[in-house]
Amino acid sequence: MLTAEIIAVGSELLTPERTDTNSLWLTEKLMDIGVEVKLKTIVGDDEARLEETIRDALKRSDIVITTGGLGPTEDDVTRNVSARAAGREVVYHDEIEAHLRERFRQWGREMPEINKRQAFVIEGAEILPNPNGSAVGMMLKDDGKFLVVLPGPPREMQPMFENHVLDCLRSVSGDVSVVRRVLRVSGYGESALDELISPIYKAYGSVQTSILFNRSEVEVHLSAASSNAAESSKMIDEIVDKIADVLGSALFAKNGETMEEVVGKLLQDRKQTLSVAESCTGGLIGMRLTDVAGSSSYFMEGVITYSNDAKMRTLGVSEETLAQYGAVSSQTAEAMAEGMRRRAGTDYAISVTGIAGPDGGSEEKPVGTVYIGYADEKRTKFLHMQLPGDRYLIRWRSSQAALDYLRRQILKKA
Amino acid sequence: MLTAEIIAVGSELLTPERTDTNSLWLTEKLMDIGVEVKLKTIVGDDEARLEETIRDALKRSDIVITTGGLGPTEDDVTRNVSARAAGREVVYHDEIEAHLRERFRQWGREMPEINKRQAFVIEGAEILPNPNGSAVGMMLKDDGKFLVVLPGPPREMQPMFENHVLDCLRSVSGDVSVVRRVLRVSGYGESALDELISPIYKAYGSVQTSILFNRSEVEVHLSAASSNAAESSKMIDEIVDKIADVLGSALFAKNGETMEEVVGKLLQDRKQTLSVAESCTGGLIGMRLTDVAGSSSYFMEGVITYSNDAKMRTLGVSEETLAQYGAVSSQTAEAMAEGMRRRAGTDYAISVTGIAGPDGGSEEKPVGTVYIGYADEKRTKFLHMQLPGDRYLIRWRSSQAALDYLRRQILKKA
Repeated sequence: MLTAEIIAVGSELLTPERTDTNSLWLTEKLMDIGVEVKLKTIVGDDEARLEETIRDALKRSDIVITTGGLGPTEDDVTRNVSARAAGREVVYHDEIEAHLRERFRQWGREMPEINKRQAFVIEGAEILPNPNGSAVGMMLKDDGKFLVVLPGPPREMQPMFENHVLDCLRSVSGDVSVVRRVLRVSGYGESALDELISPIYKAYGSVQTSILFNRSEVEVHLSAASSNAAESSKMIDEIVDKIADVLGSALFAKNGETMEEVVGKLLQDRKQTLSVAESCTGGLIGMRLTDVAGSSSYFMEGVITYSNDAKMRTLGVSEETLAQYGAVSSQTAEAMAEGMRRRAGTDYAISVTGIAGPDGGSEEKPVGTVYIGYADEKRTKFLHMQLPGDRYLIRWRSSQAALDYLRRQILKKA
Repeated sequence: MLTAEIIAVGSELLTPERTDTNSLWLTEKLMDIGVEVKLKTIVGDDEARLEETIRDALKRSDIVITTGGLGPTEDDVTRNVSARAAGREVVYHDEIEAHLRERFRQWGREMPEINKRQAFVIEGAEILPNPNGSAVGMMLKDDGKFLVVLPGPPREMQPMFENHVLDCLRSVSGDVSVVRRVLRVSGYGESALDELISPIYKAYGSVQTSILFNRSEVEVHLSAASSNAAESSKMIDEIVDKIADVLGSALFAKNGETMEEVVGKLLQDRKQTLSVAESCTGGLIGMRLTDVAGSSSYFMEGVITYSNDAKMRTLGVSEETLAQYGAVSSQTAEAMAEGMRRRAGTDYAISVTGIAGPDGGSEEKPVGTVYIGYADEKRTKFLHMQLPGDRYLIRWRSSQAALDYLRRQILKKA
């Protein structure tokens, strides 16, 4: 497999406020064509460090990609430094300057003289046009190695890479293509899941498997690099089928879908409708459901009944229930779901009430105590949970648990 | 100023799914004590590349910090490789092994023999205890340089750095401390804001200013490094006062507060209450408001009236209004806010109705058309906006605009 290094240039990327997202995007594109990223560097507008970084990368790796530092100011050092690291001069291109002048003219402005710097390119490099900005990119092939110099803004970098770099790298990386699948699983921890499914995936040596925990679910990432994409797909399909046999309904997504997409699809397929009554999640479940385009065909209504008064007035939870069992109780959760379903006239309603913290916990009901209610035309049920984490995580995990509980009830009915 | 490099170790950090968050956290801590981060590297479990990376970093920088690769498996190469890069041996510590055995015993398990590897440390390095995991850290001072080797999991790395590394680095970085402030501004673009406030901050050469756009607001980051923290604070206070004079109520946060925190504080100070009626934002406004601990004292109730039926039944929007003007209109937005306020009996109510896309737009009302409604005891008002972006951004910007509209109305009343 060909190896690559990615170098992000810019002092702003070394502050706590900014993070380099280009390298994640590039890593995914490179993986797809069977190129392995071996190192990533973030370096400021610092000529000496950048030159050393590019030079070392060219020694070790087949492909070196830099992003950023191609603007017109003195801080933008990548053009000259990358040339130096590759042992080349920079040369001036009249036609780039003419093109830039024309662009500025179209915006109704005179080209500032400072932009002339952007007409210098590494000697012998292919010039990569930039329809979305003033900085051209460069690709230098030398001694079997590639040095690709791209601008920093993603909307300039991404189309430049896809239109002018990807095919060329694909042709040298050979016939390798990578097939990838992401599975999502609820109700298991990382290691318990791994124990269950490792005998399956370990039988397929050519498929790379990684297991990642992600807030409230475990993801299984499968990828296979080979010259035969159809065969890779078949192998991955086999693994997925075997994992599905072992996990049953705990495997909720076979193609990277989110929980809200999966629930939405189930409702859409059945032409059924949903309403939601939230307390501690404060709108998060509604927000997630309506994140999905087209959700208006199954999601009808939600209420955020934060106060006891709202729980009584809007959902018809009785004063006695609240007084006897408390707002955070299975009785209240069930009454909320029933009241919601009655008021909205939907096929299903779910509810959440709990203590997200940091305050409000007691010995009997500590922070993280959450009750989920469910109602359909025949049954009302609840689920009690004790969730770990801070306020953010408890709210997120409550929303996930409520959607998952609904999903499992719908599947049971079918 | 002392310089630092941060090296994150782990092949999983070179996949598109995982991002290195440790280096952002460390950068912030180092900035606070006046240490400048000059380079960041992410490297896989690759002995040769890691050794070269650490060796080069030690040549160039005063402080080199690695995170990750200290586990007990063969993939965990940082212990041996960092020793080699520093020209040292690793030595075995019986007391670390004894301590590890005791930890495992407390968990009711036998220590696997593989964990013995974690009892090796770089010769001459200070051992950094890890109450949250099995990997100790190491700090080597050599020739005026620091090599700090930390575990990867943030909940192990962060307390180790704060309790055992920070003070030591602070003592060598001299008397420098950094004062920072983040301001948040609504209603301005990046460059328009910069034009207005650059004459102010440019008069303070020792204060670094950067302006960042962040989904729906512009942030102004001010920082001053000096040996006199009181003087830096005074300078930054002066800048903030002058910016506040120019921007008025557009400057909504002087200390990095979020919009939902600012609105919550206004309501809490006035002992007033709020309810929210959402359509296209689907619960996002409720979710943001209730993200703030203690929000139950002012946020009473929300409804997510996604269907027309819910808008009529729950909020009392008339069939005529919906038929004549449509669900996305100023009339519907106002009727939603009035209906919400009436039903919840709160001091204020806000509402949002709009077209978040990707579908549902028309020539007359394209995707991004959003109406915000506001009602208090005396007035009902609306705000019409045409927002750019995809579904995610339109929803986010709608929620921000609604909260900001409420904020400005509350301030006007006062």
